[in-house]
Amino acid sequence: MADPTILVVGSVAYDSVASPEGERTEQLGGTAVFSSIASGYLTRPGVVGVVGSDFRDEDIRLLKDHGVDVSGLEIAEGNTFRWSGSYVDDLNMAVTLDTQLNVFETFNPTLSSDQADTPYLFLGNIDPDLQLSVLNQMTIRPRVVACDTMNLWIDIKKEPLTQLIDQVDVLLINEAEAAQFTGENSIVNSASALLDHGLKTLIIKRGEYGAAIFHDSFSFAVPAYPMARVVDPTGAGDSFAGGFMGYLAAVNSGVEAEDAEAIRRAAVVGSVMASFAVEEFGLERLRNVTQAEINERFTGFVNLTRFHPLGGGQGLPTP
Amino acid sequence: MADPTILVVGSVAYDSVASPEGERTEQLGGTAVFSSIASGYLTRPGVVGVVGSDFRDEDIRLLKDHGVDVSGLEIAEGNTFRWSGSYVDDLNMAVTLDTQLNVFETFNPTLSSDQADTPYLFLGNIDPDLQLSVLNQMTIRPRVVACDTMNLWIDIKKEPLTQLIDQVDVLLINEAEAAQFTGENSIVNSASALLDHGLKTLIIKRGEYGAAIFHDSFSFAVPAYPMARVVDPTGAGDSFAGGFMGYLAAVNSGVEAEDAEAIRRAAVVGSVMASFAVEEFGLERLRNVTQAEINERFTGFVNLTRFHPLGGGQGLPTP
Repeated sequence: MADPTILVVGSVAYDSVASPEGERTEQLGGTAVFSSIASGYLTRPGVVGVVGSDFRDEDIRLLKDHGVDVSGLEIAEGNTFRWSGSYVDDLNMAVTLDTQLNVFETFNPTLSSDQADTPYLFLGNIDPDLQLSVLNQMTIRPRVVACDTMNLWIDIKKEPLTQLIDQVDVLLINEAEAAQFTGENSIVNSASALLDHGLKTLIIKRGEYGAAIFHDSFSFAVPAYPMARVVDPTGAGDSFAGGFMGYLAAVNSGVEAEDAEAIRRAAVVGSVMASFAVEEFGLERLRNVTQAEINERFTGFVNLTRFHPLGGGQGLPTP
Repeated sequence: MADPTILVVGSVAYDSVASPEGERTEQLGGTAVFSSIASGYLTRPGVVGVVGSDFRDEDIRLLKDHGVDVSGLEIAEGNTFRWSGSYVDDLNMAVTLDTQLNVFETFNPTLSSDQADTPYLFLGNIDPDLQLSVLNQMTIRPRVVACDTMNLWIDIKKEPLTQLIDQVDVLLINEAEAAQFTGENSIVNSASALLDHGLKTLIIKRGEYGAAIFHDSFSFAVPAYPMARVVDPTGAGDSFAGGFMGYLAAVNSGVEAEDAEAIRRAAVVGSVMASFAVEEFGLERLRNVTQAEINERFTGFVNLTRFHPLGGGQGLPTP
């Protein structure tokens, strides 16, 4: 098997989730899982993470079956990270009921020499010191480095987080966190303050309202796919990240001004993957989508957003 | 001057507004004003409303200068409707400080025979009984009838409001009101329940997140224009309605399945007008935009949303 084109670093978890549509116990989840499965539909992902000795063989097999290189998945003594949350009162915001870090508590990712020259790197939401450590282990600067983060790190690790943001190409962050990090209220001002850190592309995630992409040379907005039934929002952001970075890796694109068309498409692919992720609990839908369904939903996004531009030199009608 | 192509029924008001960007006292506002000024950039609007004897000549002139037929603007004894509100704590939601209905309290619109055959009709947010009364006065069924409403009427006048919705072609409603009217939580389920009333086009307004358009034959989402500075959101929804209906009237379009391209464009024109409305207090920006600026912002929406579709028969890359 060829080397991975994208390395995904983050949690591998057993999630217990309740939503208005039901509940599941100890289903496979975590940032590294959702994002590697999503990117596996486009390119060859490798995962860097840690699981416990209780990790199920069938879950290793699931990753492998989706083209995920699991050589970077450390199996440590103890139990796999567990998270338990509820969306029963608000589908847009999980209430965390329980977190057991277990083997994740001492997670300290060490890259092999094979991994250290992977051209695309997604640093999922973990302690910014660890994200920096992984970035520093890369022997060749990746073509694109993206990172995610969360409110906790803005609260207690703002300095290393800022160092990280200063060095990555792409930041994925939700709207409230962008406001928290920058102290700005409007999304445009938050974006401007974040781009000033040297980011090439900023992705502000807006949950059921989709995502806004900011670049020095353009802005782009993609709505969420309208769905009658959202079952489990867990992993939507990570699936977006996997689709976004997976598409860039698949077409070998950077995130410079001249890559604008690829960045726009990558954001739509990310939205496609997120839309599948939330349709069923955990990976139940995302793991089973077909290439045809992915293409069909991409075209669904085209139909959801397209309209006729003004013809050359023509304006809108006047009275 | 030729007869109006679109009749706009609603409040004409003097608004006092405070926002984080400052405040204004007794500026011209109201549904009929914002929507007629917005549609006046595209077609010939006529306004149906009532003002008091205190209404300023300069405000009549402003309407006329924007091509608005004011023959349906009744001047009654007493004072013009006043509304006072604050966006200081939350730009997305006005806190009403004071409402003085004044002459608006006994507003009972009576159409002239000239007005009663206008081909496009926008029933702005007023008592649904009055909206029904205006609709019943039309001697020829207009090509397109649109209406707006608000939480108050869903609370206290649900029956006539439902009768109205059963008869109009287009409903503009915000997301919370759609949920309130239908009892559904997801936007897709709200939309489905509302379309079941026989609406041809449903526009769900989402404030800073733009608008979602639902039609039996397609869905369409348009984001709000990203702006560093929103000064005064008053009138954004009415400006959207004016732009939407004004565009349909200007191109003589209905809202059937075969009109999908016009409906999509109309929603973008509505978004263009709303984006101008919020840039300054009251009408300060919307009244001064040029045709070139309108076309430029329309193209701004194209650039904000466009991405390359899949080429004929081609799919996304695979690993």
